[in-house]
Amino acid sequence: MEELCRAMRREQDALGIRDIPTSAYYGIQTARAMENFPVSGRAVNPNLIRSLVTVKKAAALTHLKLKTYPAEIASAIVQACDDIQAGNYLEQFTVDALQGGAGTSTNMNVNEVLANRAIELLGGVLGDYTLVHPLDHVNCCQSTNDVYPTALRIAAIGLVRRLSEAFASLQETLQEKELEFADVLKLGRTELMDALPMTAGQGFGAYAKAVARDRWRLYKAEERLREINIGGTAIGTGMNAPAKYTFYMTDLLQDLTGYGLARSEFPMDPTQNMDVFVEVSGLLKAASVNLLKLSGDLRLLASGPAGGLGELKLPAVQAGSSIMPGKVNPVMAEMTGLAAMRVIANDTAVTLAAAGGQLELNAFMPLIAESLLESLEILDHAVRLFEERCVRGILVHAERCNELLENSAVLAAAFIGHIGYEMSTEVAKRASREGKPVRQVLLESRLLPVEQIDQILNLNQITKPGVPGK
Amino acid sequence: MEELCRAMRREQDALGIRDIPTSAYYGIQTARAMENFPVSGRAVNPNLIRSLVTVKKAAALTHLKLKTYPAEIASAIVQACDDIQAGNYLEQFTVDALQGGAGTSTNMNVNEVLANRAIELLGGVLGDYTLVHPLDHVNCCQSTNDVYPTALRIAAIGLVRRLSEAFASLQETLQEKELEFADVLKLGRTELMDALPMTAGQGFGAYAKAVARDRWRLYKAEERLREINIGGTAIGTGMNAPAKYTFYMTDLLQDLTGYGLARSEFPMDPTQNMDVFVEVSGLLKAASVNLLKLSGDLRLLASGPAGGLGELKLPAVQAGSSIMPGKVNPVMAEMTGLAAMRVIANDTAVTLAAAGGQLELNAFMPLIAESLLESLEILDHAVRLFEERCVRGILVHAERCNELLENSAVLAAAFIGHIGYEMSTEVAKRASREGKPVRQVLLESRLLPVEQIDQILNLNQITKPGVPGK
Amino acid sequence: MEELCRAMRREQDALGIRDIPTSAYYGIQTARAMENFPVSGRAVNPNLIRSLVTVKKAAALTHLKLKTYPAEIASAIVQACDDIQAGNYLEQFTVDALQGGAGTSTNMNVNEVLANRAIELLGGVLGDYTLVHPLDHVNCCQSTNDVYPTALRIAAIGLVRRLSEAFASLQETLQEKELEFADVLKLGRTELMDALPMTAGQGFGAYAKAVARDRWRLYKAEERLREINIGGTAIGTGMNAPAKYTFYMTDLLQDLTGYGLARSEFPMDPTQNMDVFVEVSGLLKAASVNLLKLSGDLRLLASGPAGGLGELKLPAVQAGSSIMPGKVNPVMAEMTGLAAMRVIANDTAVTLAAAGGQLELNAFMPLIAESLLESLEILDHAVRLFEERCVRGILVHAERCNELLENSAVLAAAFIGHIGYEMSTEVAKRASREGKPVRQVLLESRLLPVEQIDQILNLNQITKPGVPGK
Amino acid sequence: MEELCRAMRREQDALGIRDIPTSAYYGIQTARAMENFPVSGRAVNPNLIRSLVTVKKAAALTHLKLKTYPAEIASAIVQACDDIQAGNYLEQFTVDALQGGAGTSTNMNVNEVLANRAIELLGGVLGDYTLVHPLDHVNCCQSTNDVYPTALRIAAIGLVRRLSEAFASLQETLQEKELEFADVLKLGRTELMDALPMTAGQGFGAYAKAVARDRWRLYKAEERLREINIGGTAIGTGMNAPAKYTFYMTDLLQDLTGYGLARSEFPMDPTQNMDVFVEVSGLLKAASVNLLKLSGDLRLLASGPAGGLGELKLPAVQAGSSIMPGKVNPVMAEMTGLAAMRVIANDTAVTLAAAGGQLELNAFMPLIAESLLESLEILDHAVRLFEERCVRGILVHAERCNELLENSAVLAAAFIGHIGYEMSTEVAKRASREGKPVRQVLLESRLLPVEQIDQILNLNQITKPGVPGK
Repeated sequence: MEELCRAMRREQDALGIRDIPTSAYYGIQTARAMENFPVSGRAVNPNLIRSLVTVKKAAALTHLKLKTYPAEIASAIVQACDDIQAGNYLEQFTVDALQGGAGTSTNMNVNEVLANRAIELLGGVLGDYTLVHPLDHVNCCQSTNDVYPTALRIAAIGLVRRLSEAFASLQETLQEKELEFADVLKLGRTELMDALPMTAGQGFGAYAKAVARDRWRLYKAEERLREINIGGTAIGTGMNAPAKYTFYMTDLLQDLTGYGLARSEFPMDPTQNMDVFVEVSGLLKAASVNLLKLSGDLRLLASGPAGGLGELKLPAVQAGSSIMPGKVNPVMAEMTGLAAMRVIANDTAVTLAAAGGQLELNAFMPLIAESLLESLEILDHAVRLFEERCVRGILVHAERCNELLENSAVLAAAFIGHIGYEMSTEVAKRASREGKPVRQVLLESRLLPVEQIDQILNLNQITKPGVPGK
Repeated sequence: MEELCRAMRREQDALGIRDIPTSAYYGIQTARAMENFPVSGRAVNPNLIRSLVTVKKAAALTHLKLKTYPAEIASAIVQACDDIQAGNYLEQFTVDALQGGAGTSTNMNVNEVLANRAIELLGGVLGDYTLVHPLDHVNCCQSTNDVYPTALRIAAIGLVRRLSEAFASLQETLQEKELEFADVLKLGRTELMDALPMTAGQGFGAYAKAVARDRWRLYKAEERLREINIGGTAIGTGMNAPAKYTFYMTDLLQDLTGYGLARSEFPMDPTQNMDVFVEVSGLLKAASVNLLKLSGDLRLLASGPAGGLGELKLPAVQAGSSIMPGKVNPVMAEMTGLAAMRVIANDTAVTLAAAGGQLELNAFMPLIAESLLESLEILDHAVRLFEERCVRGILVHAERCNELLENSAVLAAAFIGHIGYEMSTEVAKRASREGKPVRQVLLESRLLPVEQIDQILNLNQITKPGVPGK
Repeated sequence: MEELCRAMRREQDALGIRDIPTSAYYGIQTARAMENFPVSGRAVNPNLIRSLVTVKKAAALTHLKLKTYPAEIASAIVQACDDIQAGNYLEQFTVDALQGGAGTSTNMNVNEVLANRAIELLGGVLGDYTLVHPLDHVNCCQSTNDVYPTALRIAAIGLVRRLSEAFASLQETLQEKELEFADVLKLGRTELMDALPMTAGQGFGAYAKAVARDRWRLYKAEERLREINIGGTAIGTGMNAPAKYTFYMTDLLQDLTGYGLARSEFPMDPTQNMDVFVEVSGLLKAASVNLLKLSGDLRLLASGPAGGLGELKLPAVQAGSSIMPGKVNPVMAEMTGLAAMRVIANDTAVTLAAAGGQLELNAFMPLIAESLLESLEILDHAVRLFEERCVRGILVHAERCNELLENSAVLAAAFIGHIGYEMSTEVAKRASREGKPVRQVLLESRLLPVEQIDQILNLNQITKPGVPGK
Repeated sequence: MEELCRAMRREQDALGIRDIPTSAYYGIQTARAMENFPVSGRAVNPNLIRSLVTVKKAAALTHLKLKTYPAEIASAIVQACDDIQAGNYLEQFTVDALQGGAGTSTNMNVNEVLANRAIELLGGVLGDYTLVHPLDHVNCCQSTNDVYPTALRIAAIGLVRRLSEAFASLQETLQEKELEFADVLKLGRTELMDALPMTAGQGFGAYAKAVARDRWRLYKAEERLREINIGGTAIGTGMNAPAKYTFYMTDLLQDLTGYGLARSEFPMDPTQNMDVFVEVSGLLKAASVNLLKLSGDLRLLASGPAGGLGELKLPAVQAGSSIMPGKVNPVMAEMTGLAAMRVIANDTAVTLAAAGGQLELNAFMPLIAESLLESLEILDHAVRLFEERCVRGILVHAERCNELLENSAVLAAAFIGHIGYEMSTEVAKRASREGKPVRQVLLESRLLPVEQIDQILNLNQITKPGVPGK
């Protein structure tokens, strides 16, 4: 109905004729895909679109060199690519993120928009594909099946790098907290029960180590993403893609992206096998597990103020409740955990889609792309927000930390090397029973001289390797 | 930066003062949440917003009856609710779908937009909360913790009903195919290897049965979603919600939704326990498994045309390849499988979030809402598109079906009851070895008279229970 | 090598001749499967074996009625079945749980063991299948493809019933705790931060409600498991299974199991569609989510003794640490959470396997069986142990509960209806700042008379619906 | 009951006195754990037990050097360790795999069995811990929390190496097939529809590449597993573990295992963070995805014999059906896929357990251990069996491959560079419509000379990069 009111042009494909809005840069194949896949209402990830356009630009530049078709067509396509990279026409990428067809509809959407923009640049009328053709020119020597995985890898590398930086920043802030809280003695807890003493700084040190691994893993993950199958065309054998074309493409993609991309020596493999994306998604899952642990710990340690552990104070970033005056909740830590859960869920999607490949292609690549790129993006956002609005501003209640430690019987463990396991147990039990600090029980018991007790309970001993006081 | 150029008003909350765009219907709490949670770039599901607005309308109507606050305020809030239900102001719901805080930010977003729209209706200036207050009026007697789960259940019921209808329609179409193909004899396959004969119709009958279960399960799932915790306020004990309020709320929500909602007899339970959403998500997963099976089977049976099974022909809905002339791919079946995978992945999110509840609340409800509602919506869309654009137009190649069956040695199994297992095996082997149909081998072997052979191989026998020819 | 030392008999199948230990009740097909599938080292779940034997017994009794083969053979098979049901020969079921072939190897293992035991009962020598044949007699009119799903459903029903009872018992114990702790006033917590007051009993009431749903869902799940495909043979069309046979089989299986089993009206469906098992596994996942929540809450509430919440005390069932004197850990709650995680993981297996079905059969049924039956068993064990060794013996530290509540500023929320939200916030802030109980701050502020303050803070008001003191 | 008939000894711990069978090498802590955790009926993975014993041996040797306790005790413990490593007493490790308590019960089980065996070696009576004490001697300077993760890493490295070899062997066999089938021209398939031509060898080449990545990833995974936290004791701070002890332990563990183990520079990290196991499990998941793809492809390509693709023939390893004479199923490929599914499910368990860590420890380590080690083992077995009993014996039906290709219209794509896309489409359509090979249509059309047609359709051209015939 809406279309009736709009000016229309006619386009044709193998299935017949269809009206397309005159002003649309997309064409008939996109229009069919829009009708076929109104599934999620979500557009294809813009990072993927931009990477596809990068591939198309490299192809046009290659054909410029190879003189496959007239230079003015190639130049117009290059200009059209630059227009999109500059942020224009993004609303023309109208195919749903959840689509069948192994990404063909997204590739065709890109081909059509670029062709029409190039036509416009050459002074033609949108839809006049005799000037610039989506397939014969924009897609020349290409297949969705080599373009799409290549673009997905490029998009993923860009986001992996950004995420790696986000983790680096989180790691640094955690290490700053490690130093800042280095002298705050507190109770360690195993299985949520009182355990040996530690410093608040040490706790953050352990978090920093885990995040450092996440950062490093992502850094290494780029290696596996660099192998591209461009030039393999439909099934990786390379039919209809001349050797020179593929050679230039790889060079140009390196230049355009700045990434160390390398052509697969066996392009049939990356055309059909998606394990590399499962691997990367698995690393994101490992990072998410660390974020769930870290954000959960912060929520525990900051719980209260009256009825919780109350050792940490997280920055207040918004009011917590309409019904409970003055309540502030750990929303940034919760958001971080929630984003981590989403990434773990996306890993399920990546795994299912990757396992669903059959023979020379994987029909479910669009789900891999959607899920993996979303994971990379939301982790990036979540980690940055978490660092800026939560971790950076964490304060420690040193007094509360000390109080809980001193009230705990676990300090008795420090004396095992001096008065034996049995006597230490006795001290621990008396401390618990009588509600007295271990130090006091020991003083009263006269088992050791005051100086030795204090030496054993010394901060520099009690949280470091070795038998305290020896 | 952008904000500097815009006209601004000032709002204040417990954390301080903030500028808000003068024209914004949302307020300071929404603004803080926008800063805290730019995670996914996705808005909260509109179905959830609409259901929250329904709860707010019920509350305003309740307070109108109870005369909690002036009738003109209540009436203005009711009108504001109607405005949003009519599809206006949806762009004012600006908080990210992936948020911390158990849904508080979404609830406050709704409170603020409704308050400001009501203020406007009363002739006031946006932000002048002395006229209508987001908390004191719109949220009166409520907590996010009873409003949000109640609204989520209402939203889910609406989508469950729609999805149930979609499955009903798919079931019907499958049953039509069952009738349509009732006389097409074909080869059954177990473990992808030739098995006993069947009709093409029977195959669709089996699919219809599975889909019928999906439909029925969803129908039953509504029962569990009907129990709402409105009136429970922050932890389900109901502090600050008068008994009359809760009574009226439940009645009004029934009227406004038309659903058989019932107040939980123990509201602490639905405030903190999310297993009902895990249950519903699990049913969607079961349905997804059926869709994966069904769509995968269609892709297998329609594979080819030269190098596949080629028994079915799926409707062509778009061109398949830019490099392979005339290729048409089963994109609707692939989309269906892909959507099913996404639903299975969302089930992981729902499970993780639900398991992450602690004590009197689940902080991860926004992920449950986002994932479950997305699953309900994309399944609905996928099933409808699959039915309309794929299943409905399926054709069977009866000749191909017959040919594959006749070339197969499995028909020998029909003679076990007449010539014994060993002799049948001999017939099967000879048929395979010599590339002859079983019927011909039997004729040549003169083991049975022609009439009996044909009687045994009779369509009405061979695909039905019992020993063929007896 | 080992086999060289043992006495051997020779058996033959379509693939050739093989030596079998003379004393083995299994035969050549089992032997081949043992060589093909030494994957997990785990035997097939005994519940499945027993259910398969039940099906075989029903078949022998049916053939006894139908006089398909000599009565003495049928009687010997029945006796062999009874021997196994009595717990004998279980070590003869030697095929690995993780096997290819849709369960054929397990079915053949059962056929061979029963045949050889029947041969023995008839005075024959193991391996002399002229007396009783694994296929022609024990498996007569059957296919793995109808026997295996039928047996799996029978096994699942038995375990579902047992598990439902375990949940009933846990629910009762939680309800006892609800009563026992009905008068212990304590702090509620949302997002781990201090929230409104509640009673310790109410907390257990909320847990009991969730567990009640688990119990009820399992009870309902049986309905879907009751539909069996026996008589459908290889693909569900029923070839070679006479109608009378199927009729008797269903009746006898009802009698032998005591379950309300019903023959599927479309046996092709349960032969190939596994969604019912996904549904049941999904319900176990919902129950697991509740167990994770419940056991996690208990661990939180019992954390300490010095550095945790310390509101509950879980029974000590074993020493906790070799290095920390006197430490006791919440191991039963941890085990419960751990078992729940395993069940959620098994649900992944069930889902993947069920989605992997193709055309007329699902080749991965053995993984469904292994995972689902394991889940049912470990949940049953975990829930019973949890109830007996943890929940039943939980004590509450009423003093600690009261202390945390009184030190909390949340009680200020009870006064919103009397002194307004703003003044209540002021009271809350002062209580926090000065470290005084809310009651004391209110007394000092003289905002309300003592009697009213105490009336508002009354246990019977403060944890129940309505505005306290009104 | 059983115990009443047996001779008993008495043991005591902090919880009281208990009878232990006189002949048992385990003691009271094991006995309590047996009562607490009869959950799965599965023993702890023997690889973990052996690695724990290795750690205990290193500790005894360390104490021998450090003279912590009498040399004869240390020597007896060393001898006891060697006895178990030799395969004895494995039945004494009786604690269930699914246990609470972060592995304490397994560690105590090992401590008790070693102590009692050492007591026996010193001429004492089982249970007389004055001679050798499970805690004071066997566990000296250790905590479950450093012993258990250290042992788990050692066990994982051993299995990772073995699995890496299994993949190497599979890769080699696939490469042999690549060579063997290098000249068999066949149809490629994308989205299960006819695509460009390829050789059967190329298909196996693509599989080999994927498996090569799996092998390489596992090889690299060992790096991350090498970092051990021994010496960190309860929370990683190292209390009660002298520096020399830790130094010797690391050296000795290197010697005893032959692995490049390195002490963590921040032992609190590996004590509480489990992301490394998530990472390794994620790599196994990526490998499983490849195995699902590969085994699924083999099943597809070998489907038939009459009603499937029929291009490959997998070795027959067992009879397939009792009701369909002569049926052989691809059971080894199915088993491989099934094992892969199980590994993916185990990854869910590893992820959930790792995410469940809190503060200074992860209570769910036993589930990580059980799931990860099972995955490593079953993948190893599955890959070896798959290679030996399936891939190695695969045959190709060259004639069938050629026939399907020749009947397909896709060969028209080879002529795009010579007669244009449109004319090629025309040829493809005519070939399909008239059921003639593309070569014949081209000959009849006289568009190109015979020599050129044959040159274009040349095997050496058509499956390699570039425009065929140019």
